[in-house]
Amino acid sequence: MIRLRAVGLGGLLSICASVCGAEGLPAVGGQGAPVQKLTMPNSGVARVAFVVSDMFTLIDIAGPMQTFDQVQVPSGGFETFTVSETRTPIRTAGMTIVPQYTFQDAPDADIVVVGAQRGDDEQYLGYLRRMNARGKLLLSVCTGVSKLAKAGLLDGREATSHHDYIDQFQKRFPRVQFVRDRAYVRSAPMIFTAAGETSGIELALHIVELYYDHDVAVKTARYMEYRGPDWQR
Amino acid sequence: MIRLRAVGLGGLLSICASVCGAEGLPAVGGQGAPVQKLTMPNSGVARVAFVVSDMFTLIDIAGPMQTFDQVQVPSGGFETFTVSETRTPIRTAGMTIVPQYTFQDAPDADIVVVGAQRGDDEQYLGYLRRMNARGKLLLSVCTGVSKLAKAGLLDGREATSHHDYIDQFQKRFPRVQFVRDRAYVRSAPMIFTAAGETSGIELALHIVELYYDHDVAVKTARYMEYRGPDWQR
Repeated sequence: MIRLRAVGLGGLLSICASVCGAEGLPAVGGQGAPVQKLTMPNSGVARVAFVVSDMFTLIDIAGPMQTFDQVQVPSGGFETFTVSETRTPIRTAGMTIVPQYTFQDAPDADIVVVGAQRGDDEQYLGYLRRMNARGKLLLSVCTGVSKLAKAGLLDGREATSHHDYIDQFQKRFPRVQFVRDRAYVRSAPMIFTAAGETSGIELALHIVELYYDHDVAVKTARYMEYRGPDWQR
Repeated sequence: MIRLRAVGLGGLLSICASVCGAEGLPAVGGQGAPVQKLTMPNSGVARVAFVVSDMFTLIDIAGPMQTFDQVQVPSGGFETFTVSETRTPIRTAGMTIVPQYTFQDAPDADIVVVGAQRGDDEQYLGYLRRMNARGKLLLSVCTGVSKLAKAGLLDGREATSHHDYIDQFQKRFPRVQFVRDRAYVRSAPMIFTAAGETSGIELALHIVELYYDHDVAVKTARYMEYRGPDWQR
């Protein structure tokens, strides 16, 4: 069976609005911890760095990038760009892309997204560790979770990945608790890991929900004509 | 409401397998005409040209490209590439891409995909007309349908587009009959038009279904963890 979110967050959010106030919302999937909203920078625009490297899976980047770029709000929103070790063009599927920035000269980001791709040297992992240490939001899609795990950012945490890779990652990263059948997991307050490929769209919509609200996420999904069942109401 | 396919084709295909033989399958949405399967080239690999130009909507290209690239078959499948007027890099959302070929030097394609983007001069439209005249399969996603309409390839045909653009396109192209609430329409035997953005994934999965069968399309959707409800069975 295809992975689905265990609980429709929209219903919980709307029930909670009158019960919980602004302090915290019920957990997705009944984990017991309150759902922490995310806060936009004072500028009203969150900058999103998409890390790209050889063999990157296109949809892992394109799905969340499109979602953030088209967030249905009257002003502000997200500003997206790509970052890599160098500006050397990268081929993925039938597309060649040129990274806009390197790890050295990229604008400061509020959110960093890593998808399935090669690259896990110290320059790459160091960027993720620095951004984490500075309280930035880290998102992985598909096997991109292996970068966060190798950087040591998921030790003692739950995480997820593409369904075909859960078992091998569990062996390779025994300090991480990999879980199945979830589109995404909040692995730490500022780290989310998504399952395979188009699960990145699910995660991006959830992030929109946490920065704004469920209605904005639903409007964004509708604009994109995205048919994931959690975003139809 | 988000657009959904009027009829689940999978059920029809499987019911029909024992009723109709290989001659034809019932129409999607009860149009009365038999569903014509598509035939792979003798090589077993269908080449897919994705036209890209300024301001192209990333997901219109990335969704179908990822779907075709990952078709779940043991051998053969699809080979994808980008084509444009020149090889000048193109910026879209947070990504800069370099077209792999121009209309002059692109490998011969079996399938051409056009998404939302600028560009409708004679070089661009001429490519579409030539490919159509040679019996190639043309697919539009989102407002990409305007290229096919402007090229005169949809006169007297049904077509669809992003839900926000149906009305203005109906005025601009009165010879085309625009329809709402469908993820895609078979506008002609070798022309399909999809609705907005991620509807391109729906159309690509349907094309996989027509070249192979429903099971291959479902396996491909599952591999991508795509949650559109028509591909869960």
